[in-house]
Amino acid sequence: MQQKKYRDKTGLFVAEGPKLISELLKEGLRLHSLFTSEEIIENTEKTTGITERELQKISSLKTPNTSLALFEIPEQKPFLTKGLTLALDGIRDPGNLGTIIRLCDWFGIAQLVCSEDTADCYNPKVVQATMGSIARIPVSYVPLGKYLKESGFPVYGGCMDGDNVYEMRLQNNAVLVMGNESSGISEEIQALLNHRITIPRFGPLQKTESLNVSTATAILLSEFRRPTET
Amino acid sequence: MQQKKYRDKTGLFVAEGPKLISELLKEGLRLHSLFTSEEIIENTEKTTGITERELQKISSLKTPNTSLALFEIPEQKPFLTKGLTLALDGIRDPGNLGTIIRLCDWFGIAQLVCSEDTADCYNPKVVQATMGSIARIPVSYVPLGKYLKESGFPVYGGCMDGDNVYEMRLQNNAVLVMGNESSGISEEIQALLNHRITIPRFGPLQKTESLNVSTATAILLSEFRRPTET
Repeated sequence: MQQKKYRDKTGLFVAEGPKLISELLKEGLRLHSLFTSEEIIENTEKTTGITERELQKISSLKTPNTSLALFEIPEQKPFLTKGLTLALDGIRDPGNLGTIIRLCDWFGIAQLVCSEDTADCYNPKVVQATMGSIARIPVSYVPLGKYLKESGFPVYGGCMDGDNVYEMRLQNNAVLVMGNESSGISEEIQALLNHRITIPRFGPLQKTESLNVSTATAILLSEFRRPTET
Repeated sequence: MQQKKYRDKTGLFVAEGPKLISELLKEGLRLHSLFTSEEIIENTEKTTGITERELQKISSLKTPNTSLALFEIPEQKPFLTKGLTLALDGIRDPGNLGTIIRLCDWFGIAQLVCSEDTADCYNPKVVQATMGSIARIPVSYVPLGKYLKESGFPVYGGCMDGDNVYEMRLQNNAVLVMGNESSGISEEIQALLNHRITIPRFGPLQKTESLNVSTATAILLSEFRRPTET
């Protein structure tokens, strides 16, 4: 289950720790099986008692928790919707993806649409980093160019050389695209942007190369959500 | 050098990779010694040729780069200054600290002042994560309560139950305090805050527990820096 091909084959993903597991259950995700060394989390026929030592063997965590669950991967297609959609173009780091899913949850983002080369959101590292947000944000993987062309909403892109985001009036029925950690938004997708937006640098020396993609996403989502001055 | 006690004893810290090393040299940090398997980075008497296998042994990276340098830890005391000072109260995760130092560099923060239980900024993980920003931002470790009492500037604190940051007029000669990943700002420091500020949640379900401290810091620094509406 560490590898995408096995997740694809089984349609299952792993979540560890009683807190995360009960949050996913609460959000209505379908439990396939639960292995726990604790008394009882959920008293169902899907629960199997397991020793801590056995858990250690199947866990992907350095310090395994008391419980490990397999959940069914929900089927998810992208949809066209009012509100703000976040699109990711080639985000590779599972930690960044997890942080971004939490941000989507905080800022009430309608959905997350990912290019097919973006990290898999059911990677165990992502699942653990999202702390339950994964169950609340619809995440889909699509040919991103096609999706953007059909969306019909203005498409914003976080770029190094765009317009100052603090000086723009952002529309809230829109798509915001964030690009790969080192190469940014791909050429194909750049061509589909209606607005290129940038967080200006303030350092007197201006030597920082770039913001990390998750902190940049945090700031841009905040800009979309903060009330417009009148 | 992985452990703080050895860094304290020797007054040295480790940086790996030619790009980071040359950036630290450019910023004027004092090189103690350089071990490299590459042709030449810096042709000085401080450079020692080394095989990749030897490098593997001394490196703290999973995939060691071609070079490893020891630099002298600069002596750094906090100072009272106009402009925005960021203060950290008990940040434990080196990855978060590294991201926050990069943010300070981007947003032109005057200095970073850390409580004594904050992670050490010369931890190799922090050094690697800052990508050179560590040489541009003065970082000091102090009894934080004492520093805040003496600062004379308004003290803002990022809190879960503060005032809506989007509705405040923030002063730029100030100190912003961010707290520990799980417990937030300590009671001692809470008592010294002049303004408690919060990034409001937008999710309709409002179930996300909190923002990660580095994304919250990103958003608050952006709020301090963005131009005030008139």
